[in-house]
Order: sequence, then C-alpha cells, then structure tokens
Amino acid sequence: MEAMWDAQGSAGNADGGAQELIDALERVVPGRVLWHAADTSEYSHDRSHHGWAPATAVVRATSTEEVAAAVQVCRAARVPVIARGTGTGLEGGANAVPGAVEPATGIAAQRSRAVIIDLRGMNRILRIDPDSADATVEAGVLRSELNPVLAVHGLQFVAGPGVDASIGGMAATRASGTNAVKYGTMAENVRGLTVVMADGAVVKTGGRARKSSAGYDLTHLFIGSEGTLGIITELTLKLAPTPEGRTLTVLSFPSVDAAARVVQRCLQAGVDLARAELLDTAQIAAINAYSHTDFREASTLFVELSGEARSLEGQAARLDAIADAQGLLERRRIDPADQERVWQVRHDALPAAQALRPDSYTWSTDVCVPIAHLAQCITETQADIESSGLLAPIAGHVGDGNFHLAFVLANGDDAERQRAAALYRRMIRRALSFGGTCTGEHGIGEGKMSDLIDEHPTGVPVMRAIKRALDPEGLLNPGKMVDLRGD
Amino acid sequence: MEAMWDAQGSAGNADGGAQELIDALERVVPGRVLWHAADTSEYSHDRSHHGWAPATAVVRATSTEEVAAAVQVCRAARVPVIARGTGTGLEGGANAVPGAVEPATGIAAQRSRAVIIDLRGMNRILRIDPDSADATVEAGVLRSELNPVLAVHGLQFVAGPGVDASIGGMAATRASGTNAVKYGTMAENVRGLTVVMADGAVVKTGGRARKSSAGYDLTHLFIGSEGTLGIITELTLKLAPTPEGRTLTVLSFPSVDAAARVVQRCLQAGVDLARAELLDTAQIAAINAYSHTDFREASTLFVELSGEARSLEGQAARLDAIADAQGLLERRRIDPADQERVWQVRHDALPAAQALRPDSYTWSTDVCVPIAHLAQCITETQADIESSGLLAPIAGHVGDGNFHLAFVLANGDDAERQRAAALYRRMIRRALSFGGTCTGEHGIGEGKMSDLIDEHPTGVPVMRAIKRALDPEGLLNPGKMVDLRGD
Repeated sequence: MEAMWDAQGSAGNADGGAQELIDALERVVPGRVLWHAADTSEYSHDRSHHGWAPATAVVRATSTEEVAAAVQVCRAARVPVIARGTGTGLEGGANAVPGAVEPATGIAAQRSRAVIIDLRGMNRILRIDPDSADATVEAGVLRSELNPVLAVHGLQFVAGPGVDASIGGMAATRASGTNAVKYGTMAENVRGLTVVMADGAVVKTGGRARKSSAGYDLTHLFIGSEGTLGIITELTLKLAPTPEGRTLTVLSFPSVDAAARVVQRCLQAGVDLARAELLDTAQIAAINAYSHTDFREASTLFVELSGEARSLEGQAARLDAIADAQGLLERRRIDPADQERVWQVRHDALPAAQALRPDSYTWSTDVCVPIAHLAQCITETQADIESSGLLAPIAGHVGDGNFHLAFVLANGDDAERQRAAALYRRMIRRALSFGGTCTGEHGIGEGKMSDLIDEHPTGVPVMRAIKRALDPEGLLNPGKMVDLRGD
Repeated sequence: MEAMWDAQGSAGNADGGAQELIDALERVVPGRVLWHAADTSEYSHDRSHHGWAPATAVVRATSTEEVAAAVQVCRAARVPVIARGTGTGLEGGANAVPGAVEPATGIAAQRSRAVIIDLRGMNRILRIDPDSADATVEAGVLRSELNPVLAVHGLQFVAGPGVDASIGGMAATRASGTNAVKYGTMAENVRGLTVVMADGAVVKTGGRARKSSAGYDLTHLFIGSEGTLGIITELTLKLAPTPEGRTLTVLSFPSVDAAARVVQRCLQAGVDLARAELLDTAQIAAINAYSHTDFREASTLFVELSGEARSLEGQAARLDAIADAQGLLERRRIDPADQERVWQVRHDALPAAQALRPDSYTWSTDVCVPIAHLAQCITETQADIESSGLLAPIAGHVGDGNFHLAFVLANGDDAERQRAAALYRRMIRRALSFGGTCTGEHGIGEGKMSDLIDEHPTGVPVMRAIKRALDPEGLLNPGKMVDLRGD
C-alpha cells in the first residue's frame, strides 16, 4: 500500500490504497469513519503552533475492542495511528504528521498518512466506589463530565489542566494543573490503565489497590507516553473527598521574588496549599482587560486553602503572616460565591494573553524548576522578554515550581517568531541549568523533542529502547517524543 | 568462562575461571572484593524463607563509577549481577540464585554464579536543599542515617518500612510502610535516579523539579524493578516538613471489620491520617508477650495524626467520633514521650510473632486490596488460618488496604509448610478477586513470580519485552521478577 502516498508520505484524496484502508476501518467501526479532508482536519491538530496535515481517516471509537480492531487494521496496512482526546494539547502531541502547515494561515499543504483514533465517544463512567474512593472511566470522559457525578458521593477527581481535557488525554500527557501542589499530577492520581498496544493486544496495568509492588510500573510508563507506546482506553482513578471548606485569597506583591518566596515559605512551614498560582504583572494586565477584573497590576498570587474549618483558620493565619513578612501590597479575600468565577479568570489566562494583540497567535510553553530557583528563573526570563521586545505574559503553578510563558506573536512575522524561538531556547537552558525540566505538564509532542535530548541525554537512549521494544514497527504516533527515524 | 560452573550453574571454590573474574573485579574495585563462601554467604540472601547459595564474589562498591566498572567486568564474563542494600527484603529479591537451601537448616548446598554488588558503602548524603525540600543521596544511605541530618533543617524523609533499609533498596522494592497513607510510597517520594544499566552505561532519570512531562517516566520504571533493569546508585528525594505536632492513639475494637471501617470513614471524611496500623488479636497477643506491653487483646488500631496544633484538635475530634460510632472498646492516648517506643513495638511485630514459637522460622507476606474490601479479606483469611491450624498473626497498613501475614512455622515440618503454602495461594487469589495486588510493598523477588503472572496476565508480556530491551543478555538479577529463561 506504500505506493498511494508520495515521497513526503502524504496522500491526495481517499483513493487507491487509502480507500482500501478506509473500507477496512469501516468494517470494524461501521459508520464512524471520516475521510474527507474537510472532516478529518479538525481532528488532526491540537491547540499548539506546530505543523500538521489532515489525517487520512478518523475513527470514532466507542470501545477498547474497536480501538484494538482499528489498530490491527492500521498495522496490517503499516499506517501510523494517533490517539486523540479533546485536542487541547499544546505541543502537537496529537497532531497528524508529516505535513507542513503555515501557522499564520492554518492551511495544511498536504495530507498525513496517519489514522486518528478519536476517543471522545468513549465517555462512559464505568464504576464508582465511594468506599474505596476510586472510579474507572473510559478515556474520553471529560473532567467536567466526571466531577458532577462524583460530587453526589462527596468525591472529586482533582488532577487536570485549566481546559476541560479528557481524562485519557491528561494521562497520556502527564498533565497536572492548579491542584497539583496538594493532590499531585496525573501520575499520582491514576491507579490502573487499559491500554491497546501496537499489535492490538489489550493490556491491563496497575489495579485498584492504593499501592502495589507487583512488577514493573507499567501504569507510570504509559502515563506521559503521549500515545507512542500504547493507546490508553480506560483508567482507574484515585478520588479525593470534597473538602469541607475552601478559601481563596488574591495577594499582590512588589516582585515575583516576594510572591515566590511566600509559597516556598508556606511549603516549608507545612501550610497545606490547595492551589498557589502566580501571575506576573503582564498577565494580570491581560486578565483585567479580558475578564473585566480590577486586580492590582503587580506580581500576584491566587492562593486556595481547603479542608476542615478549624484547620483552615490555622492555615490562613500562617499564610497571612508569611505574606505580610514578604512586603504584601494588597490582600483580597474572595467571597465563596465568587471563587469559581475567579478561578475561571485564571484558567482564561491564555485567551486573555492572545486578546492583547489583534491578528496574533499564541505559543504557550512551560518549564518547571526546583522551587528555590523559581523566582530567579522567572525574573531572568522576564528581563529577557523585555530586552527581546516580545509580548509574553507569565502564569505559573508556583507551588510546583512550574510556570507558563505565552508568546503572543503577530501572524506572518517570521522575524518576531525567530526572536521568540531564541528566547525559548534560552529559557529552556536556564531551567535545565537550575536542575529543572523542559516541561512541567505540557509534554514533549512534536515541539520539545530536542529539548528532551538536552534534558535527558542518557535517558533518551533508554526511552528509544523501550519504544522499539513495545512498538517495533513505529506505528504509534511516530515523530513524537522520541524519533526512531534514522535508527 | 562457562566451563567453570557445573550444570546447575554453581561454582566450587574461587578457582579456574572464577579466579579470573575475581582478579578482574579486584582491578576495578581494589581491596573490596570478597570471594570465600564464608564471607559471601552473609551477602547472598535477604530475610526471606527463599532459597539462596553463596555468591561467587561480593563487590563492596563505593561509587557509581565502581558499580559501572564491576558490571562491565561481569558482563564480559557473562556472570549475573545482583545489587544489594541491607538485605532486609522479604521475597528473595537480592538472593543469589540458582542454588537450593534447606530453610530449616539455612545450609546452602552449592554456590551461585552471581556477583553481588554491595551498595552499603555508598552512604554519602550528597546534597540537601531546604528551600526546595529535596536531597540527593547515595543508594546505601539508611533512613536512620538520613533523618537526623534532615531534622536539623526541619525536614524528614517519610517513605520506608519498619526495618532500617537502605534508600536504594527501598526504591528498588517500591517499599512504603506506615507513613504511606499520608505521604505515599517510594514511588511518590523519589524525583530522580542515577542507574547503572546492564551494559555499564550510567543513566540519570527524572530530576529535581516537583513534576515533569518530559519523556517516558524512567524513574517510576526503575522504582520497584528490583535490580532487574538497572542498579540504582543515587536518588533525589522529595522531603516533607517535620510536622508541628503528632498524636498517637491506640484504639481497640470488637472486630477487624469495625477497625477497618473506622479508617475507611476517616479517609472519606478527609481526616488526614498520618499512620493507621491494624493489628489483629493474635498479633497484639504476640506483641504483649514480646514487648512486655498490656494492650487489650482485640482488633487494634494505632492511629497517628500530625500537623499544626489547631488542625490536630479538629482531626482528633472527628477520629474520636468515628471510632465511637464503630463500637470502640478502649481508647489509649499515648503520651508524646512514649510515641516512639510504641511505634517500635509495632515495627517489632515480626520478631514478636516468631517469638511465639521456639525452633521456628517466619514466612512474611503481604497483599493489598481496595479499602472497601479490606475487612472482608482479612476476616476470611483469619478464618482460613484458624481452620488450617496455623499460627499467622496479621498486621496491616490499613489506610492503604495493605496487610501482612506472618506464618510462624516449625523448622523441618514440611507438612505444615505445605498447609501454609496452600493458605497463601488462597489468600493471593482472594486479594486478586477483590481487585487487589499480590504484594503491596514486599515486591516479587523469587517468591511471587507466578503470582505476578496471575495478577498481570496481559502486563507480564510487556514487562518481559522491557526486560529484554534493557538487559538483553539477562545479567541483572536473573530469575527474579520476570523469568526470561525459556524465551
């Protein structure tokens, strides 16, 4: 079937061999295969600035068995397979490649050979056990679909980014978000997985026990593997009790350094931070404009505490004292009725940044460093942004040492993009020099493959050996994470 | 060099090819190679009841470079390599095999081909950063060596079993212990590793950031791999602040069911249990006799709460109310000055069990189940113990759904041992039927390889593929975890 694709690996329309492939997919997932480029395009890319091309086909699977059958069809045709949740990734992890696209126009030049397996139809909550505080869900379930059902049992699933991603996609990206400082990332909140392997085999990892020493930790291996080792179709999740109460305080400081130090001191003092979000002056300005808020334009923390009433009082008193000692400019306690709205404002930081500039696109990236180095890393990056003449607000999960930078770039301005790329590389090098990582929660995808090698020069050969062992034909999301081309 | 070992893979004394191997090891680790069977024996087994034989040699390494060099020597000679910490494992994970030993006499019949790499000499604390709450240590550091140094900074390393194991050994076993309900297991408390691979390459995994989405999670892959994928030589650890205060309460209940339900309700209510240990009536009787205590002989919980003073009061009040509602028989608040001593009593549960019977040995095993099924799993197991006429006290990390059973068996009584083995298999099947695991924290080692297959029938082929990819010659701790012989 190779002949139907040209030398660049692209197909024209669904004819010749591609039609045979589509027919074969239709036989295993009848009525749920898309193949017109106009239809496949929206499934062929995430929210990143990275290149993509319309996939050959999209399979809208509704069960593990259908995913396994579709993978087997693709394997027989030697066609790459890309798993997809909501497409809210930021590093091209679910993009159909190869294929170039002009970021300014969004027009793809050619088609990708790949078949996308869309998992959003796998949206059943299979089991909730309030007594063991766990649940099993299909990979396409959204957090917004799960948490209202859990709330009835006094439970919540806490890991996840600001966007309403799928649980499977969050696991595949090793995502985290604002709650990670208290509850951990997806790595700490998934107990077991069902995974479809490159040969179509269905593997169950982990289980329902809160801990296990039984064998290699396959669950953690698949979490964060971005669909390159297997396709996650079901997940057993650890749940947390809904806290009795929550407080949200917005704190303004004279510097990033002071704000970061408050969080560091709280962690050292054992203050049980539920969320600790840092927004720099540029990001606060963007938010005020976008969300019609009037936060003081300064280095700002959004701090949530949660728990039992008496404990909350004690924690809040310690937070106040620590904040005052760092030159607090302003303290706003958010009324409980307004807390959700204020968090939404925080989650809208990226569109708020983009709205600063008409005819622009965003390039959002993240790094994570040991907390002691966070303030310095951000401050040096801010200075670099200023001297580079770029617009790039910063927001961070400061309790984790993790911050996001969103370049807001003019469409079609290549010189500006190159300045951004140079600053980006300096920021990654800076984070690594502090013992940090090139991505705290966005993943590697297409965008950070060379950064991964810089960060893990000795680890990448091990990763490649594992990739070759589990996907010897290189069919699962090729050209992402580790690139075996040229081996 | 194969010829020097006989058909069972054993060597006589250090002569012929073995002498060449020892000479080569002496060249890379001068003055720190042992080879007399009398010397190697004590390094050739752990505390389990599983078979072992004196290793050909023991290398007492003091650096990652020495470990790498020794591995390369062994690889050239095609001799198995077994990493060893304190030898406190319970499933034979560090035992030198092949080679049979009579459990009743402890006499090994032959020698093992393997070379043991003893890591206890790698006992330096390399770095502590109080501001980022992390530290980097060599694998041979003991928890008892680390925590006094951390205490100066108001920090502690919380993961680990009752015995004073090495940090590297705990990681290799994915150990946990009494603190796991609050702080997690070794899997949640290690951020990065230095690992010597089968070919002598030195790999650095993870890093110092509190979270990362950069690449496959090699750190978690090596944690719990029991030296079969690589030898852990250094670890970067997550540290926790020393809590302001602690309470310890001993609670007696009319049944295991009531005790387990108290812990389950606490977790549901968000009571922040620091430790929650269950001891059954038989175990309490053993403890009273061994440690000269006078705890009521009933199903008993040792519950620790920790944190800030105001929060502690609130938590303690909720614990009391929940315990009372489950028919509490007796409540003893332990004076702060006595807490450490009472915890030592708990950690001595295994010797206390053995002391019940002269001329006996213990077979300690553990399973872990979803918390909702813990009481039933323990109660059915107790009934089975009684009807089997065996002595086997139970102690458990009930907050994790994890319990330990210690068979106390008469030396030389094969029939009794077979009854124990049959009960053991029923207990494993019972735990798996509840969605649990065949080991919560002891690991697979030699002892649970067939249980691992029962628990992860689809996962074991993936584990084998990873083992083959990272240790293609099968030199790292062969015959443990997954057995590639016969592939």
